[in-house]
Amino acid sequence: MTTTEAGATSAEAPSEAPRDADGAETDHDRGIHGYHQQKDEHLKRLRRIEGQIRGLQRMVGEDVYCIDILTQVSASTKALQSFALQLLEEHLRHCVADAARKGGSEIDAKVEEATKAIGRLLRT
Amino acid sequence: MTTTEAGATSAEAPSEAPRDADGAETDHDRGIHGYHQQKDEHLKRLRRIEGQIRGLQRMVGEDVYCIDILTQVSASTKALQSFALQLLEEHLRHCVADAARKGGSEIDAKVEEATKAIGRLLRT
Amino acid sequence: MTTTEAGATSAEAPSEAPRDADGAETDHDRGIHGYHQQKDEHLKRLRRIEGQIRGLQRMVGEDVYCIDILTQVSASTKALQSFALQLLEEHLRHCVADAARKGGSEIDAKVEEATKAIGRLLRT
Amino acid sequence: MTTTEAGATSAEAPSEAPRDADGAETDHDRGIHGYHQQKDEHLKRLRRIEGQIRGLQRMVGEDVYCIDILTQVSASTKALQSFALQLLEEHLRHCVADAARKGGSEIDAKVEEATKAIGRLLRT
Repeated sequence: MTTTEAGATSAEAPSEAPRDADGAETDHDRGIHGYHQQKDEHLKRLRRIEGQIRGLQRMVGEDVYCIDILTQVSASTKALQSFALQLLEEHLRHCVADAARKGGSEIDAKVEEATKAIGRLLRT
Repeated sequence: MTTTEAGATSAEAPSEAPRDADGAETDHDRGIHGYHQQKDEHLKRLRRIEGQIRGLQRMVGEDVYCIDILTQVSASTKALQSFALQLLEEHLRHCVADAARKGGSEIDAKVEEATKAIGRLLRT
Repeated sequence: MTTTEAGATSAEAPSEAPRDADGAETDHDRGIHGYHQQKDEHLKRLRRIEGQIRGLQRMVGEDVYCIDILTQVSASTKALQSFALQLLEEHLRHCVADAARKGGSEIDAKVEEATKAIGRLLRT
Repeated sequence: MTTTEAGATSAEAPSEAPRDADGAETDHDRGIHGYHQQKDEHLKRLRRIEGQIRGLQRMVGEDVYCIDILTQVSASTKALQSFALQLLEEHLRHCVADAARKGGSEIDAKVEEATKAIGRLLRT
């Protein structure tokens, strides 16, 4: 387990800051989720996807050929899935791993919750 | 991109207007794709999806819990897939069926094109 | 298109057997679906997938590492989707196109049916 | 199934067998992956899926209607995805959580590996 002095003092929370074994406060306790550090990147991705959806509206409005619209839908869905996958990775790395380190039964709940989320992604 | 005066002027464009057997002009000849009649519905759907994507940005900005964000991503992906499916249905009903009625080899190209689009949707 | 004695003599006539516009009997009338010609290829594909599933059982039996099993599951799912896509292409090329050529309302039912099938594939 | 003599005595030690923080041997050290306990259930599931694939061969052999075959393909794909999801849940609960508890950098590798596996499942 890594030490995280920086995390304790700095406002911009560290990405790996579990200090739970000794009962210390973790990022999670302060309401900072795993994806916090990538926030800007996430927002940029989502803004790009928003642009794609607006592009779809333009295409429909201009009677673009159905197949070309479907291709753009596939690209947007792929971008959304890719965003979800990155979010999930951070969630596993931080929230789920934190729960494991803390011990107790929380890990079971976290894993079940993550698996259900993955199942929802798979089914779309 | 073709212009569609006919579509622009006639509000109640016929949804099923194949008159090709006798060589008459069809909707397709005038550049009106299958989804034309459902245009407003499509735009409404897409605007709703755009709202969902903006909601995702808000969630990320407000540090909402990862799993809740993933649930919203699944909903948006599902909405996009559902839009694609409706577009595809109209495409099959109009463009592909038109090609079949016209005879010749166009149907093969149309079916191959549609199948590839379905393949892209499946792989996202 | 090849003829198939078995299909021709078969007593259990298919439910979906509309006559041609000129009353001629089509392949469909004789219970020959679009995928008939590729039957051997389909069976070969399916046997290969069956082998993959048996491989999965072997892997589980031998305590192979989870991630390697998941990789094999992805390969099998992809192979199934690819089989489905080819079947669908033949269905569109034959059954759906036939319905379009015949005219009448059958095309609507066929397209709706195909779209629902695609929706089921998308949701898995 | 809880006892694992075979695994305990097996010479081909697993590559991913880090000791516990207190040096104790873990299930993982003995080559017992997360899914070990559910082995029988997994094998039963996979045998059922194998039966579905054989059912598909029968359907193709008997010229069953394309759409009915596609429905069965969807069911098989769903069953495979469901198997993958259960395997993944056990993997997260055991292998990934173990890595988190042990500390060090292994958790990063495990999470990255699991995320890639989820990505492969999503893309099929």
